[in-house]
Amino acid sequence: MQKLSLAIHGGAGTIEKSTMTAQKEKLYKDELERILKAGYQLLNDHASAIDVVDQTVQMLEDFPLFNAGKGSVFTHDKTHEFDASIMCGKNLKAGAVAAVKNIKNPIALAKAVMESSDYVLLSGAGALEFAQLRGIALADTPYFYTQERYDQLMKIIESSSTQLDHAGGKPIGTVGAVARDYQGNLAAATSTGGMTNKRFGRVGDTPIIGAGTYANNLTCAVSSTGHGEYFIRAVVAYDISCLMAYKNMTLYQACEKVVMDKLAKVGGEGGVIATDNEGNIALVFNSPGMYRGGVSKDLPLFSAIYKEE
Amino acid sequence: MQKLSLAIHGGAGTIEKSTMTAQKEKLYKDELERILKAGYQLLNDHASAIDVVDQTVQMLEDFPLFNAGKGSVFTHDKTHEFDASIMCGKNLKAGAVAAVKNIKNPIALAKAVMESSDYVLLSGAGALEFAQLRGIALADTPYFYTQERYDQLMKIIESSSTQLDHAGGKPIGTVGAVARDYQGNLAAATSTGGMTNKRFGRVGDTPIIGAGTYANNLTCAVSSTGHGEYFIRAVVAYDISCLMAYKNMTLYQACEKVVMDKLAKVGGEGGVIATDNEGNIALVFNSPGMYRGGVSKDLPLFSAIYKEE
Repeated sequence: MQKLSLAIHGGAGTIEKSTMTAQKEKLYKDELERILKAGYQLLNDHASAIDVVDQTVQMLEDFPLFNAGKGSVFTHDKTHEFDASIMCGKNLKAGAVAAVKNIKNPIALAKAVMESSDYVLLSGAGALEFAQLRGIALADTPYFYTQERYDQLMKIIESSSTQLDHAGGKPIGTVGAVARDYQGNLAAATSTGGMTNKRFGRVGDTPIIGAGTYANNLTCAVSSTGHGEYFIRAVVAYDISCLMAYKNMTLYQACEKVVMDKLAKVGGEGGVIATDNEGNIALVFNSPGMYRGGVSKDLPLFSAIYKEE
Repeated sequence: MQKLSLAIHGGAGTIEKSTMTAQKEKLYKDELERILKAGYQLLNDHASAIDVVDQTVQMLEDFPLFNAGKGSVFTHDKTHEFDASIMCGKNLKAGAVAAVKNIKNPIALAKAVMESSDYVLLSGAGALEFAQLRGIALADTPYFYTQERYDQLMKIIESSSTQLDHAGGKPIGTVGAVARDYQGNLAAATSTGGMTNKRFGRVGDTPIIGAGTYANNLTCAVSSTGHGEYFIRAVVAYDISCLMAYKNMTLYQACEKVVMDKLAKVGGEGGVIATDNEGNIALVFNSPGMYRGGVSKDLPLFSAIYKEE
């Protein structure tokens, strides 16, 4: 049974064709496809799902146009604070970090928490201290500086609100990956810089197992992107798993039910990517767009941005 | 329909009759009953479930023998870091704080996050800054100092491990409350000082909506206590809700399934208290003991510590 699958996202939100250039579109799609290709190659080389979602999310974190790692948005205090989590569907182990600074690849730190601590979730300065002890790659503030993100912060501070991501409207930025490997194991990983102008050590759904990330070989692996507060209250990722386990829904039915019905009804904007133990992939969102892509045994590699694609 | 209900806990774990004195037992049970009586009086006076779980947990936080608020355990750095969360079953609003210091009643801060911010979860120094802006009562380090807790830390540092709570064995400390009010609304609240000797900004299940706390008028209100890492990975509180919603289990069946079967199988020690929209109460734990009590229209006020009670 070699039903390999890999799906990735670079955030969901108000991504309108009218505000995008053909050049920028190509930049996003080329990058999504490059990362998918690299991740799928790893799966074909018999890498484990947990290693592939880690590696794939690190590549997404390194791309400066996505709101995670290098491209993270600015907090109110003109710093960057990262949330990330990872979960293994085989043994239900998980690792996560919240509101941590100066980590080059927050998902690598989340994986280290999973693999070499008795904890699941570390936060703030303590998480940074753990990273230093484990030799996780750090990065100074200038590494995360991009002019576009800084301009966004200045604009939002003027209008004194918070905002979920970069462009106009109400965009939402996060990156994530889900995969099924040769052994039939599932895994999910999610990483974000959170909301532009966030304050008070705000933590979204990204580091919350059950909300932003969930994986269980018996059901599915899920990575969320959207307005985190709604995703926390709706326990989005685990709800999808429960609808499969307890209501016998298919992966797609469960994602549709949670994202297009339950979340949409309460105004929770965003989406999910998910895969199941048959290697099916679902990419479901209720916002105008979601940077996304997938590839599996049955599905040629593809990337997309808008709804109608 | 006046099916009022209130249940509380003061933590689950290895609470052995052999290590307890009759005097200390009485101290715990008297306090549990005093708090239950006060909380139930509020419900009878038509207070809302959300206000009652807040007030009740504040009373539990003020009791120095429980690991929350005043009686919190020491971290590795000889400080106190609090986790807390609260959720309203009527509108699914929630508030939570993680790894925050110097808050007299962490549950009051979680409620303020729910009621007067756009966020669900705040962490660390940022959460303290929010508390100061909102006029939440603070407390200096000496307020949280108890000789017993300090001795516990010293003993554990010598054995260089972390520990979930105070006494011998593997006790687990948290406080929580669930309630159903006159209007039929449910609410849940949970608060803790976490693990003795915890490091790296460790966050347990207590501030995680879906793991430590969950409330939904359609199903149940749940507050967890136990080895937080297992409770996070099992999404304990929301799993109970899903088993009721999707598998038509009763409150008690769902709590038994999650705590005595699923959690026990993976070594996740602890328990939950829960109530449903009929005012039923369930207090289920797989550890030797859980400080607990309840009262409802059908159930005279009671408190208990050990399994056999």
